Amino acid sequence: MNQLFKELEENYLQKGQALANALTLFEWDGATEAPQDADENTSKMVGVLSDLYLNAYINNQVKVCMKQIEAQKETLDERENAIFHELELLYERLETIPAKEYREYSELTSLSLNIWTKAKQNADFQAFAPTLQKILSYKKKFATYRKKEDGKSSYDILLGDFEPGFNEASFDEFFEVLKQELIPFIKTITEKTKAVDKSFNYKSYDVDKQQEFCNFLAGYIGFDFDKGVIKESAHPFTTNFHNKDVRITNHYYENNLESAIFSVIHEGGHAIYEMQIDDALTQTLVGEGTSMGVHESQSRFYENIIGRSEAFWKPLYKRLVETFPEQLNQISITDFVQAINKPECGLIRTEADELTYSLHVLIRYEVEKLLFSEKITVEDIPRVWNEKYNEYLGVKPKNDKEGALQDVHWACGDFGYFPSYALGSAIGAQIYYHMKKVMPFELYLEEGNLKPIQEFLKENIHKFGKSKNTNQILFEMTGEKFNPHYYVTYLKEKYETLY
Amino acid sequence: MNQLFKELEENYLQKGQALANALTLFEWDGATEAPQDADENTSKMVGVLSDLYLNAYINNQVKVCMKQIEAQKETLDERENAIFHELELLYERLETIPAKEYREYSELTSLSLNIWTKAKQNADFQAFAPTLQKILSYKKKFATYRKKEDGKSSYDILLGDFEPGFNEASFDEFFEVLKQELIPFIKTITEKTKAVDKSFNYKSYDVDKQQEFCNFLAGYIGFDFDKGVIKESAHPFTTNFHNKDVRITNHYYENNLESAIFSVIHEGGHAIYEMQIDDALTQTLVGEGTSMGVHESQSRFYENIIGRSEAFWKPLYKRLVETFPEQLNQISITDFVQAINKPECGLIRTEADELTYSLHVLIRYEVEKLLFSEKITVEDIPRVWNEKYNEYLGVKPKNDKEGALQDVHWACGDFGYFPSYALGSAIGAQIYYHMKKVMPFELYLEEGNLKPIQEFLKENIHKFGKSKNTNQILFEMTGEKFNPHYYVTYLKEKYETLY
Repeated sequence: MNQLFKELEENYLQKGQALANALTLFEWDGATEAPQDADENTSKMVGVLSDLYLNAYINNQVKVCMKQIEAQKETLDERENAIFHELELLYERLETIPAKEYREYSELTSLSLNIWTKAKQNADFQAFAPTLQKILSYKKKFATYRKKEDGKSSYDILLGDFEPGFNEASFDEFFEVLKQELIPFIKTITEKTKAVDKSFNYKSYDVDKQQEFCNFLAGYIGFDFDKGVIKESAHPFTTNFHNKDVRITNHYYENNLESAIFSVIHEGGHAIYEMQIDDALTQTLVGEGTSMGVHESQSRFYENIIGRSEAFWKPLYKRLVETFPEQLNQISITDFVQAINKPECGLIRTEADELTYSLHVLIRYEVEKLLFSEKITVEDIPRVWNEKYNEYLGVKPKNDKEGALQDVHWACGDFGYFPSYALGSAIGAQIYYHMKKVMPFELYLEEGNLKPIQEFLKENIHKFGKSKNTNQILFEMTGEKFNPHYYVTYLKEKYETLY
Repeated sequence: MNQLFKELEENYLQKGQALANALTLFEWDGATEAPQDADENTSKMVGVLSDLYLNAYINNQVKVCMKQIEAQKETLDERENAIFHELELLYERLETIPAKEYREYSELTSLSLNIWTKAKQNADFQAFAPTLQKILSYKKKFATYRKKEDGKSSYDILLGDFEPGFNEASFDEFFEVLKQELIPFIKTITEKTKAVDKSFNYKSYDVDKQQEFCNFLAGYIGFDFDKGVIKESAHPFTTNFHNKDVRITNHYYENNLESAIFSVIHEGGHAIYEMQIDDALTQTLVGEGTSMGVHESQSRFYENIIGRSEAFWKPLYKRLVETFPEQLNQISITDFVQAINKPECGLIRTEADELTYSLHVLIRYEVEKLLFSEKITVEDIPRVWNEKYNEYLGVKPKNDKEGALQDVHWACGDFGYFPSYALGSAIGAQIYYHMKKVMPFELYLEEGNLKPIQEFLKENIHKFGKSKNTNQILFEMTGEKFNPHYYVTYLKEKYETLY
């Protein structure tokens, strides 16, 4: 072990890690438990902790230490190298931004959440536009500070924050494939499946029974309750402290059976990833999932590729029917699987089915590109948004609540985040085709034996945390870098077989 | 506002406060929610945060700043003065202790909890004795470092940490009164009440219904659910982040009705105190209850003086009977009030009734005095403990689990803490006699109108936080410093009237 690196870890990085954990705990607590009046006082504390968190990493002592280590970089082992690289990325992201501007930006985004929430409630994009304009200006300015001579555009830089190694060119290529292949295919399939009856899904389902079944499902797919917690919140999410404390939330709707079921499988996929990160990496800068895309590949792999397959439900469906006999007695497993996969061209991304989902993402990607290339302004967003929904999905939002105001991401300054959602689905499909080659995948599902699948994901993806990036992981596992064609093939095969 | 003080607050004290809040949140989370395997990794983070917390207060910059402020102390306003005084106390407690020894001690007490738990499970004092010996040595050594020329003994110093302004002499005086007055009185009363039938309390009570009734009770006495949370944990406790986020836990036993009821009223009393601290003081060093004794005075005031009175139950008892008709239909309110007050000479402090409670505390106080004056060693504790239980309460522990190992406090290094429990009960009685003079106390209870009582406590005790100490508060409210005779009078009047 490198002595200098050891000192860096013990004197600085551990502090940053502990403060990050504290901030995560406040976030979790705020979403699941804190009393309603706590917010104002608590946010002061969180503000102070955020400053401490940044200062733990970005300060002169760390910089001096990094320079010294730089000079003897060849003596670092693999783990140390990965952490050091991550620290460099952190510096690249934050060091060039003046502290004053960063604080202003943080205050802006902490206020913008409420402004967006109200604007969405009132379907009033104009009420959000000035704030969004400010956020966008900061993001552009910050990206400009970070520009180097490598020719990356501002949007490239932001895309790379969520998906290291990917840029506008690679996403253009990816989305072009989806556009060419999926738009016509979706038209054919939605026509064919119009008659699929899904009405049973909207009957009344006792919420306590849903919760019990969902928690059983979580354990069934591999969520370890000794290392995790499941609670309720307004929107399902996953959060992680370290590999022995990973928490997810779910939300139950009395009149929608599939919502909670597929939420718990989705968040469960995220959680299994975090639970399987190596002990040597957890609680370090590389101790979590490597990128948004790969994370999403795991959650959507569990949710869609596993969770919406007939093989998965074979050993399970009887139990679901026994839990809700009145509502499901007349529904065969084939009816059920056809219903939970029924594609519909809708307006809301989070409610989209597996087939149309990536088109929702495509639209956001194209809007972001237009914003960053200054071909449109914030004011134009609703119009462009609605035109694209009409063009790609044949639907028109009645108002901005079901249009451009539906997602929280931009209010948090998360430009460049959306593309990872679609990328994740596509990575999941690529992994799936590989796994089918190396193991009796369907058979495992039919036997209710998900352990070998979980084990494979651990050994080939999860345990590495951030110490390998997306393409490294894919290449070492499958012999190939990211390739979007598996995704298209998967969707076509699946939907042509199903209907 | 003093400019230097403002800088001290903004640059240092707020950091300490935020880190204290983070540590409290980890504690709360650990007791109520964290998954079982999380502990080892999480405790590393908590260790780092504890160091950061101490360093935020105890460092050279703060010392320099304090010296500068010292020179212009007359310009501080009341709030600043109170905070500054608290900071001085913190320095007095921690500055003289070598960092290395403090860390060793922290590690020791973090391990000792498990050792004590196991020793208690096995009723094996010897398994705990060596650890307790080490803890005691550290506490003695630390107190020696802190000694000044004011002649305070080591035990004085520790007593003063929990109850500023009190020392061995004042507690000796207090406990002597209890000894003289209560021991013979308890003998008479327990003889008289032997026949009181309490068996209904141990019937089966649905735990969900208990919980619902207890949460209703919390709201009834003034617990504000917009500023607080009630959860379950192994042992009930209160924790506070600031005046708008105060949390309590409860524990429900199927075969013991009164346990959860009086726990929630007790913790509710603690919580109301913290919720009513002034906005200008919350989130500062003086932003919580002034001492253990005064805190306990509030919780025991609500639990016993209010909660175990017939007047309190008059508007409530019908609802309790309706919640548990089968179990309580035959029990009149008089039967009920006699049962919940029935005095019994038992072995366990936390299960003791109001009358015998302070004798349990007396025994611990006398054992601690003997330890600190080196008249006995750790090895002697079980023998001395058992002798005193026999002498004062006429009962003999069968083993150390129900004897000297029952309480966690010594395993945490909390010597000097116990006396506050008895002091709190006595302070509560003194406040009660004053309140009866200035308001129609019983009438308010009978009307189910607890608001004026809560308001009085806010204006005379709660809002001040730590900015006034015990005797200041009592003197300004009642015109008298602490006087133990009210307590004895209260107990005698209450028990003579009841039976």
